[in-house]
Amino acid sequence: MHHIKPVELDKAYRLLNIGATTLVSARHEGVDDVMAAAWACALDLSPAKATVVIDKSHFTRDLIEQSNVFVLQLPTVEQAELVLRLGSVSRHDDPKKLEAADVKLFTMPGFENVPLVRDCSAWMIFKRIPEPHNEQAYDLFVGECVAAWADERVFSDGHWHFEKAPDGLRTLHYVAGGHFYAIGSAKDV
Amino acid sequence: MHHIKPVELDKAYRLLNIGATTLVSARHEGVDDVMAAAWACALDLSPAKATVVIDKSHFTRDLIEQSNVFVLQLPTVEQAELVLRLGSVSRHDDPKKLEAADVKLFTMPGFENVPLVRDCSAWMIFKRIPEPHNEQAYDLFVGECVAAWADERVFSDGHWHFEKAPDGLRTLHYVAGGHFYAIGSAKDV
Repeated sequence: MHHIKPVELDKAYRLLNIGATTLVSARHEGVDDVMAAAWACALDLSPAKATVVIDKSHFTRDLIEQSNVFVLQLPTVEQAELVLRLGSVSRHDDPKKLEAADVKLFTMPGFENVPLVRDCSAWMIFKRIPEPHNEQAYDLFVGECVAAWADERVFSDGHWHFEKAPDGLRTLHYVAGGHFYAIGSAKDV
Repeated sequence: MHHIKPVELDKAYRLLNIGATTLVSARHEGVDDVMAAAWACALDLSPAKATVVIDKSHFTRDLIEQSNVFVLQLPTVEQAELVLRLGSVSRHDDPKKLEAADVKLFTMPGFENVPLVRDCSAWMIFKRIPEPHNEQAYDLFVGECVAAWADERVFSDGHWHFEKAPDGLRTLHYVAGGHFYAIGSAKDV
């Protein structure tokens, strides 16, 4: 927890730029859910915006539609099993999904009603921008980032530096089934 | 060229899933352009759809709006300099942009009017789905994939296998400035 540092909002897009798989979390009236989403993407620089595809079958979607807030966070290689599990089971089918998966949630000051998943490498809180056509036709949600943090061991001063941190903190990039890639070597030109 | 093999359309989303930076290309009435876009994302499985953010300043955008076709292709680590260049210069400012960057284009049978960039690792041709609100408000374009190919050295049978190919063929993940990451190790759970 003591590694978590704020990210300037005009640099938050860089958290999403590398295309890592995300965990989406939300809370409404004390009910939490977390799901996996590979289809999250930056949409604008400043104010920072993002899109995320959330199918109608997801319990998390109901929470977002009611609370108008969602979190995109970047799980690490060490959380691959958790990501697969959160992406495979719906809270509609297992109300105890989060306990069963042993998901640890926390909150940040000023956002006491927004659940963040522990041990990820970065967190972005979004205010939903309602877009009924996109949500209905494409399951596509748009949000504006209102706060962001990162684990300073892998992201600080607006830049990722995975090469200076334990490999277990690298981001995950989902292919299919149980198959992921970790982010790799830096390439500077 | 002899490594290029078709990708089944219902597996095409896996090309985008790992969140690599893309090159966007388009042609209208014999005029080509190619730009870099980190903000491309899968949107649906079948038919495969994708979103891509293309600012109004880009020449490529005009070509897409006129031809209703665009290509998302995944450049490799070896093409990092090319990607940075194509992302920094607009054809509006330098009509000889493609020649100056030494971009090599090719086409595939059945799609003779769609320019693909050589030496990438994967290519997806999209038919634009016109979404005037998204395009104007967010610079967000939606497309349906009508054809896809990949370099079989890194993607075959619906799966990436970078670990079996030269490292120069790994995908690029853009952060900012001249700073990229290559995709890294496989992680299977």
